[in-house]
Parts: sequence; structure tokens; C-alpha cells
Amino acid sequence: MKPVTNIWHPCTQMKDHETYPIIKIERGEGIYLYDDKNNKYIDAVSSWWVNIFGHNNPRLKDAIKNQLDKIEHVIFAGITHDPALKLTEQLLSVTPENLTKVFYADIGSAAVESAMKLSYGYRKNNGVTSKKRYLYLDSGYHGETLGALSVCGEELYTELYGDIMIENIRVQGPDCYRCPYGKTRNECSAQCFEHMERTIEKHANEITAVIIEPLLQCAGGMKMYPPLYLQKLCEAAKAYDIHTIFDEIASGFGRTGTMFALEQAGVQPDFICVSKGLTSGYLPMSAVLTTDEIYSAFYDDYTTLKAFLHSHSFTGNPLACAVANETMKMFKELNIIEENRKKFPVMHEYINKKFKGQPHVGEIRHLGCVSAVELVKDVKTKESFDWKDRTGFQIFRKSITKGAYLRNLGDVIYFMPPYVITEDEMIKLVDIAHESIFEVL
Amino acid sequence: MKPVTNIWHPCTQMKDHETYPIIKIERGEGIYLYDDKNNKYIDAVSSWWVNIFGHNNPRLKDAIKNQLDKIEHVIFAGITHDPALKLTEQLLSVTPENLTKVFYADIGSAAVESAMKLSYGYRKNNGVTSKKRYLYLDSGYHGETLGALSVCGEELYTELYGDIMIENIRVQGPDCYRCPYGKTRNECSAQCFEHMERTIEKHANEITAVIIEPLLQCAGGMKMYPPLYLQKLCEAAKAYDIHTIFDEIASGFGRTGTMFALEQAGVQPDFICVSKGLTSGYLPMSAVLTTDEIYSAFYDDYTTLKAFLHSHSFTGNPLACAVANETMKMFKELNIIEENRKKFPVMHEYINKKFKGQPHVGEIRHLGCVSAVELVKDVKTKESFDWKDRTGFQIFRKSITKGAYLRNLGDVIYFMPPYVITEDEMIKLVDIAHESIFEVL
Repeated sequence: MKPVTNIWHPCTQMKDHETYPIIKIERGEGIYLYDDKNNKYIDAVSSWWVNIFGHNNPRLKDAIKNQLDKIEHVIFAGITHDPALKLTEQLLSVTPENLTKVFYADIGSAAVESAMKLSYGYRKNNGVTSKKRYLYLDSGYHGETLGALSVCGEELYTELYGDIMIENIRVQGPDCYRCPYGKTRNECSAQCFEHMERTIEKHANEITAVIIEPLLQCAGGMKMYPPLYLQKLCEAAKAYDIHTIFDEIASGFGRTGTMFALEQAGVQPDFICVSKGLTSGYLPMSAVLTTDEIYSAFYDDYTTLKAFLHSHSFTGNPLACAVANETMKMFKELNIIEENRKKFPVMHEYINKKFKGQPHVGEIRHLGCVSAVELVKDVKTKESFDWKDRTGFQIFRKSITKGAYLRNLGDVIYFMPPYVITEDEMIKLVDIAHESIFEVL
Repeated sequence: MKPVTNIWHPCTQMKDHETYPIIKIERGEGIYLYDDKNNKYIDAVSSWWVNIFGHNNPRLKDAIKNQLDKIEHVIFAGITHDPALKLTEQLLSVTPENLTKVFYADIGSAAVESAMKLSYGYRKNNGVTSKKRYLYLDSGYHGETLGALSVCGEELYTELYGDIMIENIRVQGPDCYRCPYGKTRNECSAQCFEHMERTIEKHANEITAVIIEPLLQCAGGMKMYPPLYLQKLCEAAKAYDIHTIFDEIASGFGRTGTMFALEQAGVQPDFICVSKGLTSGYLPMSAVLTTDEIYSAFYDDYTTLKAFLHSHSFTGNPLACAVANETMKMFKELNIIEENRKKFPVMHEYINKKFKGQPHVGEIRHLGCVSAVELVKDVKTKESFDWKDRTGFQIFRKSITKGAYLRNLGDVIYFMPPYVITEDEMIKLVDIAHESIFEVL
């Protein structure tokens, strides 16, 4: 073993770096990352889907600098502060009106775990003990702490740890590219919801909540599915007294073309989890938004022991709140949602132009500010490449040599750039992807 | 229900705030928090044990501001940066030499969960599937995501959620104030280790790791126990092939009088989890330090699927690394450990002077930069107050009216101020505590 570094990088087989050097990034500017040799790379995945307004953004960094001169952090129990109060107002103003309370955490996984605990705690505080399992979808991803991992439908992440997690109930979800009903996206009636429906009917008594990434399953391969599925889900969940937890950690803050993906379905979940874009990807922060009904179940005299005694040290961090507030301000002042709607079709169309009908291009998908190209061995049968060939990974490594950090998800190459990308830069990025793909294939 | 706020504060029965106002903090300066009416409060608990060098510290905030002008955040897979490289070197230089690798996470709970997964993943990757449970102590606390919560020995946090966590093995640990063997701290031979010893002997085949807060069980009531227990633990764990996970999240970075608490036992655990003081309490960040042996079990060709595919979006955040690097620098340049050793005995002695022999003072405990006063109903029998009286909580609320944020842990009132506290301020803080306690009792 060659010790390439004493840092154990996340989600990485470190042995890969015997072959592929680890890039040392020195600075960032807009969509670009600059390494120690002054090579620049387009941050095509927004640094794990967090960065929305570009690196080294003057407004965002000033927001942090200004807050640093007041207070960087303070315990958030018994204490509040303006940055948190403002942020809470703003979050509630852009989410469904049934959501009235905000519980802050620090990272996405912790928001998911908080929502899971709140759902179950609500049952317990109301004297219900049978509803203690969660429903989740194939290809769903919600984080990797053990609670969040127990509702992930991606074996790649869960397989090793089955024995140290509780068992929840996995449901076959939408798989539009390989639709088992032979439908296309245009003629879809979310027939695949039947699996969820049957599971809900069968297990309603033991289920407290269903968790889902609305419209876009990210880590599962940037899979996109129609809003109708969410409408059916919320309806069925309501009928069977099951909470809906919408994981908007990646989809939130404009990524799918609306401020939150749920808007496209017009639904009101019981919980929304947010993170990533919340701080424009500058600092770790997450939040769970929920209803008065959930809140009330924990609201009582202390000695009833009904309180939600959950905490993370850095909950409500003022620096993170400050940059989140500036983020919200920028959305409004710069008309981000509208501007993206005008701009991102350029990316969609150029991807279509370059990739449609090309060999091994299985499906091209677009949703707001995300596009994905799923590569397959056989376009006709939709048979995947042998995963051991690591086709997508090779393309990713190739893209780096061409000036883009286009990290793959299996054999899905996807485009999820910061919103500050220009139309010319979109063209350039798609060209790099095209070259990388067809040099490898 | 009176909706006092739309923020759901952590670890709080929100109904309490019908009676007690939530303080709005506007700024901080050194050990002081200032509210919107310019009242100041000593941050006696270092904002949940995170702040070590005071609020609004010029060096620390400059470190963040400078980093902001380079890069605020970048994905940490396939990419590295100077702030992380420097921090890794520094962390490895102040921890036992068996620890050679650093895995970054964002919050304490996530570090604990990472260590838990790494321990079990090591077994699985080595073909061992039987070792899948964790040992933990009474009164132990390691965070509140569901994996971390499953090794917490505090019912207050766990009771509601037993059904949605895996079951691990709880062990009766040290309880020096109420020593079942009738020993005092001076004559202790860690006889209570017999419980751990028996459990290890009985369950060795199913246990992958034991997790412990070295020397100081914080959330459990600032309970302190002697290094001998850790020595026995590490010896027994080694003999039975059980990993040791030291949770130094609260005890690390000088809090117990040495850089890490483990130094006082001279032991080499398999994992250390750090957070809180790591960034001087400015930003969320955590890390797991571990050995080459653990690392090697995950290091192989990708297709063996042995990699540790765990990640959090903000892992390795450059801003957090930058302030952590400045923290490490300050420890060295300002001789913090030595200076604290000179200064904190003033706090210890003044507490002894004010509280020894006073009514209801059960035990006074000191360890480095932490002191605790455990209040009891009956000093002779050590019988506690009825928890429903919330004696400690009343004292906490009283302390706020006197200019200190002295958040209680049950009926334990503790002192864990930032290290920048002066001797005069120590006296003042202890006086406030004394007044608050005896006005309530």
C-alpha cells in the first residue's frame, strides 16, 4: 500500500489515488476551481450539489465577514439571535403554509434523523407505539448516519452495514427510464405507485412516515420522476395517517426549477428537510420544517417528558444563518428562479443536440438546473455496462484532464453547475462531457 | 399554547418559554454574550462546550476572513486543499502515534457514527460478521442521530426512541461520587471495571467496539472518573479484539487539562472522535482519527467494494479547517495547556472555598478547565432532589438574571468557561453561581 495521504477522503476508494492524483485546490471563482498549478476546473457538480451562487461570491462572503464582527456562534438553547429569526421567517415564507416551525440542525443527515425522530416521537407522545417503521424508495438516498442510512435504497451505501441498522421497509419506486409499464414520461399516470399503495395498505399500522426525495433521486443516479407520484403519495399517506418527510436537501433552493421541488406537485408534506443550497454551499447547516400538529405533540409541561430533547452543538450557528439569509435575499433580488428558467434550457438543448441518438446514450434527463445522461451498454435493451468496468468513473477522470470536475454516479454523467454559469460556459461544459465520454467509450 | 417563536429550539421544552423569555443575543466578546438590551452574560458553559478562546476573537475571525478570500468550500472527494492538509498534520502531531489517518465529518454525532461504521466495516471487510454490537457506559453521551443515540446511556435522551434504534450493550460504569465500593477518588483501584470486564468476557464474540468519553462524562452530569479505568479498558479490549472509540468531542482540546483526556491514561485507542473545540467553537466540524490497520481493511481495488463510501457534503470545509488551524497554532504559541494549568486552580479553589460543607452540596469535582457542583437533597445519604422540582433548572434561570449563562445538567451546576476567562472573572462567575444556588435552595 502506498500511503498517498494521511487524509481519508469521503466516499472514496483511496487506492484509486495510486493511479489518479488528488487535486489540490487553492482558490475558487464563480463556477471555477483553481489548483496549485493554476489549472482551472468547472465545478460541474456544484461541490456535491451545494454551491449555487459560485465560489468566492462577494455578497456571500461579506455576509459571513459582517456576522463575524458580531458573534460567530452561541448556544441555541434558551437563546436566539437575529440571523436565526430572519432566516426562519424567510424559510417559512417560501414553503407551504402548513409548515410553521423550524428545527435547526447542522448537516443534512442530522435533519433527516431529526425528522425521523420527530415523526416517531409524535406517535409516542400521543400514546401510539405500533407505528415505528419508515417507508423509503429504491434508489433513495438520505444520508449516511445510521438512521438516515436505514432509509436509503442504494445498496452501494447500505450493504456493508445492514446488521447495525434497524430494518425499515423498502418500496419499489418510479424508474421512468426503464418503466415496467412501458410508458413514456409524457403518458405517465404514475402506475408504479401501486407498489407504494399496496405497502401502505398492508403496513399502515406499523408505519410512522414515508421519506422521499421529491422529483429527483440524486445519489441514486439523478433519476427524475413526475409530480403525480408525489400527489398520490401525499394523498395515500394522509388517508393512512402516515407522515410525509420530503428530503429537499439536494432538490431545494431552486435546483429543480422551482424554489422547492414540492411546488411542482402542489403538495404539503409534514416535514421538509433542507441543507446544501441553504447556505449557498458555504457552511454546513440544515433544518427541518414542520407543522403545528407535530410541534404540539411535544409541547407540554416539562415533567411530562414530552420535549424533543435533541440537539447538535452548532445548531443555529449565526455565521451559517447569515450566509443563508444572504442566499434568500439573492433569490429575491436577483430573480433567480425566473432567470434560471430562461437560462438552463440552453444547457438542456445543447445536451440534447450533442447526445441524442449517440451510441450508448440511454436516456437524457432534464429537470430545472440538473441534466443527466445515462450511458448504457445497449441502447435497445437498456442493458447497463458491467459495473466493474467503471465506465462512468473513467469518464469522470477524463473530464478532469479537460478542465471539468464531472463526478459520475455510476454510469450517469450529470450536470449540476452553480446557477451563475453563463450560456457559453454551459456549452463548454457539455463539450467537455461529450469529449470525455466518447474518448472513453 | 402560546406560540412564543416559530423556531423549535434544541433540547428544550418550548413551553418553558411561556415563563422564561428567550434571550436575544446580539454580539459576543471574550467570555461575554450581549443581548439586545446590552445586558451581558458570562458564557459559563462555552456555548455547549465549544468555545475555548472567547467570542469575537480577532485571530480566529481573521483566519476565516482570509480563507473566505481563497475558497469557502469545495467537494472533498478526489480533491484536497492546504487548510485540510495542514490541519491533518497538526492533529496527528498531538495525538498518539498509532493514529495515522484522519476522516473528516461535520458534526460530533457524524464522527461517532463514522467511527461506529468503520469499526464494523473493518470486521466485515475481514470476513467477520459476528462482531456487530457496541458497548457503552451508563451516563455516556455520544450524540443524538440514531446510531450515536444507540450508544447513549442517558434515558433522558434515549427513552422515547428505543424502538427505532438497534440495541447495543450498556455497561454499569464508574460512579465515583456514589462509589458502590465505598472508595474515595484517592484510594480508587477502578474496581467498578469488573462490570465491563465481565461483559467483555461474556460478549466478546459479538462486540466490535466499546465507546467511551475519557475521564469526563459530560451530558451525564459532568461525572469524572480516574485514568485507571481507561487503562484497564484498553487492555481488556485489546485482549478480546474489541476496538476502543474515545469520544473526545467535549474532552479534547485542553478541556480536561491535557490536550486530550487520553493522555492522562497514556493509552492508544483505535479511534478518537473530535469536534467542538476543534474550531474553537466557531464552525461545525468533526473528525475521526484512526490507525493504519483500520484504514488497510478498506484499502483495496475498487471492485472488491471494500471502500468506506461514507460522506457528508461539507466534509473538510476549508473555512472550518482554517479556523481549526488557527486554533492549533494558538495552542502552541500561547502555551494554552500550561497557562490553563496555572490559571484554573484559582477556579477550583474558590469553588471549594465557597461550596465545601454548604447545605445540599453533595460533591465538588474538578478536572482541568471543568468544575462541577452536584446538589443533593441529603448530603449524608446522597439522595437526589425530586427531579420534578427541577432544582438545577431554577438555578440556571436565576443565574441568567445575575449575568451568567450557567445551564444546568439536572442538579449539577458546572463551570466550563472559555479559556480566556481571567481569575477575576472566575471569582465573579463562582459568586453568581453561589448566589443563584442559595437563593433557590
